Amino acid sequence: MRWIAGGVTTAVGFLASGVSAGIKRRRKSDLALVVSDTLASAAGVMTTNRIQAAPVQLSARRLRRGTARAILLNSGCANCLTGPEGVRDALRLGRSVARALGVPEREVLLASTGLIGRRLPVARMERAIPPLIKELSRDHHRAAAQAILTTDRVPKEAAVQARLGGRLCHVGGMAKGAGMIAPSMATMLCVLTTDVAIAPGLLREALREATNLTFNRISVDGDMSTNDAVLTLANGRSGVAIRRTAEVKLFMAMLMAVSAKLAACIVEDGEGASKVMEVQVVGARTEHEAKRCARQVANSPLVKTMLAGADPNVGRIAAAVGASAARFDPDRLDIFLDHRPVVSKGAALHVGTAMLRSLLAKPRVEVRVDLRAGRARALMVTCDLTEAYVRINAGYSS
Amino acid sequence: MRWIAGGVTTAVGFLASGVSAGIKRRRKSDLALVVSDTLASAAGVMTTNRIQAAPVQLSARRLRRGTARAILLNSGCANCLTGPEGVRDALRLGRSVARALGVPEREVLLASTGLIGRRLPVARMERAIPPLIKELSRDHHRAAAQAILTTDRVPKEAAVQARLGGRLCHVGGMAKGAGMIAPSMATMLCVLTTDVAIAPGLLREALREATNLTFNRISVDGDMSTNDAVLTLANGRSGVAIRRTAEVKLFMAMLMAVSAKLAACIVEDGEGASKVMEVQVVGARTEHEAKRCARQVANSPLVKTMLAGADPNVGRIAAAVGASAARFDPDRLDIFLDHRPVVSKGAALHVGTAMLRSLLAKPRVEVRVDLRAGRARALMVTCDLTEAYVRINAGYSS
Repeated sequence: MRWIAGGVTTAVGFLASGVSAGIKRRRKSDLALVVSDTLASAAGVMTTNRIQAAPVQLSARRLRRGTARAILLNSGCANCLTGPEGVRDALRLGRSVARALGVPEREVLLASTGLIGRRLPVARMERAIPPLIKELSRDHHRAAAQAILTTDRVPKEAAVQARLGGRLCHVGGMAKGAGMIAPSMATMLCVLTTDVAIAPGLLREALREATNLTFNRISVDGDMSTNDAVLTLANGRSGVAIRRTAEVKLFMAMLMAVSAKLAACIVEDGEGASKVMEVQVVGARTEHEAKRCARQVANSPLVKTMLAGADPNVGRIAAAVGASAARFDPDRLDIFLDHRPVVSKGAALHVGTAMLRSLLAKPRVEVRVDLRAGRARALMVTCDLTEAYVRINAGYSS
Repeated sequence: MRWIAGGVTTAVGFLASGVSAGIKRRRKSDLALVVSDTLASAAGVMTTNRIQAAPVQLSARRLRRGTARAILLNSGCANCLTGPEGVRDALRLGRSVARALGVPEREVLLASTGLIGRRLPVARMERAIPPLIKELSRDHHRAAAQAILTTDRVPKEAAVQARLGGRLCHVGGMAKGAGMIAPSMATMLCVLTTDVAIAPGLLREALREATNLTFNRISVDGDMSTNDAVLTLANGRSGVAIRRTAEVKLFMAMLMAVSAKLAACIVEDGEGASKVMEVQVVGARTEHEAKRCARQVANSPLVKTMLAGADPNVGRIAAAVGASAARFDPDRLDIFLDHRPVVSKGAALHVGTAMLRSLLAKPRVEVRVDLRAGRARALMVTCDLTEAYVRINAGYSS
């Protein structure tokens, strides 16, 4: 397996495009389409929020069949909290795309991101469908990745290829993140495409596992969106069939690699983020407790502002660990910052302020918490909380 | 019952003082003492964080006897993550105060707030004990309230009096809050004093109930401190004995009033806060779900930044409700902003942006979430998340 340049059209038989449909102001790109030239196995992981946007509800229903041909995505409007009209809007857009592509309506998936509580400008969007389809090309993966962004600063793409039974196969993808990124859910919009042939059930399992270990382990602000979705299409066009254990292993590695890369891009581009923190909890009694503990640290505003200011205050990490559901003996707790012990047996060590400050000033900070209570471990990746985050989010809808 | 000016020395027989012991820089006031002239019933509610500061551990142990005479409080250093030395430091300070007051060591309670992971400057603090005791006075309640502050902008005091069986009795108190304020715990430092006579067990019950309904219902940043403590002394000097149901009711009302006032002061003075939000969840299936839901909304960074920017984005409230543990039908959800419906049957209403903006621009914003799933309800009070919060917390230890 090796990394290659590309994105959502790297796998054979996929086309993509991105245009401005006038959902956002100032003619910003806001509508994207990804199409497979043959019917593909399809799977998705959706938000666990009880309030789900119309496109999430619709795509979840269509994914039950396990196949799809196209994904229509828009930014600038979430089509959420829009009642029965919102569902009708999504249905109507899906129908227009299906007709223009000459495929059954049920083979079109939808995803939206942006402001909650506003209707989609459906008429305007329908007028943009012909140019969107005309733009479809293997070369336009970047335009598609651009069209799904909201407060993201950069498009997020990744692709890998591998040889299996003498044939090349690919996994590629694009994602948007930036705000409302929280663990324990699909966390953002992501489209993954691959040219392997794989049964829908197996694809679903693989996607779920990859998502749990990548997108569900990142956090920007602990908030949970109503629109998050990771959608995958596998069209078999490489001629590589994924059936046996060894093949599944390689495919999982490819899916994991692309997901992990896109997840990392999302954290690095977190709203207002200036640096990334890896929180590794080891020595927990159970994996569940390890995860809860890592999340409490990763989501703590006091830890995240400390990171922003490179302000050496390791007590905040310990306070977050103690506030979590993890059971441990406070007198055995060890904490390391970039492999340097800063708390030992529950007591803060006398590490010089200058040293702590230089450890925290790096663009990537590693925190390791050893609870010394068991053998379970978990990792969370998060970013710092800066004044820029507040600035962005205090004026988002304006 | 009526409100009167005063604080921790309003109840008969209490003295207080506050001086600078050189824990903080620039000779800021940082050491406070509260003393009862007779042995008092004593009770406390402490942080539920697994990591507890040395003074919290020590006071919790001493409170098991149910009586105390004095409380020594300091700001500028939390004496937490300080290992066995931290416990020895707290013991030594308590002993010095006990000797100077001529009371048994076990009758002195301790509380600390400030930076975690640093030792107390014990020698310097011991030198400040004689002036601290010399300053003890009924008039010095404000000096004591001042000495326990960290990033708070103003001292927080409250007092009430009531007539019972022809005799006047009082409850007064002081608190500090500002950062690391989160629900489900003691939340900050608070000292409540009263001149009623009440058995320690009954005092403990009353304090626990008052704390659950006041200090545990406020949130500034969702973080949970290692040092939080609400400590209460009841010395009986008013001659009013609290024994029967009717008396207990009045006393509870007094305790609740002072606690609620101090809790409100803490939210209003939240780090960087510019306004207060009351989150009322009604129609939940259980009280537990109502509380979880109210907390999810109150702690959501996206809701709190929206409030800071007075940016009308009610979808963020709905997203937080949906992300909570509360069970409800998304198609029945109603949300009100200051009694004005903004979400009805799960759909956002077309309220003008100018109107929404003016609703959110008030210094006190009321959010009411009706889950329409049951009869349970819960209230949380929180403040907005501003750039000032980040500024304060990115540079706190410097």
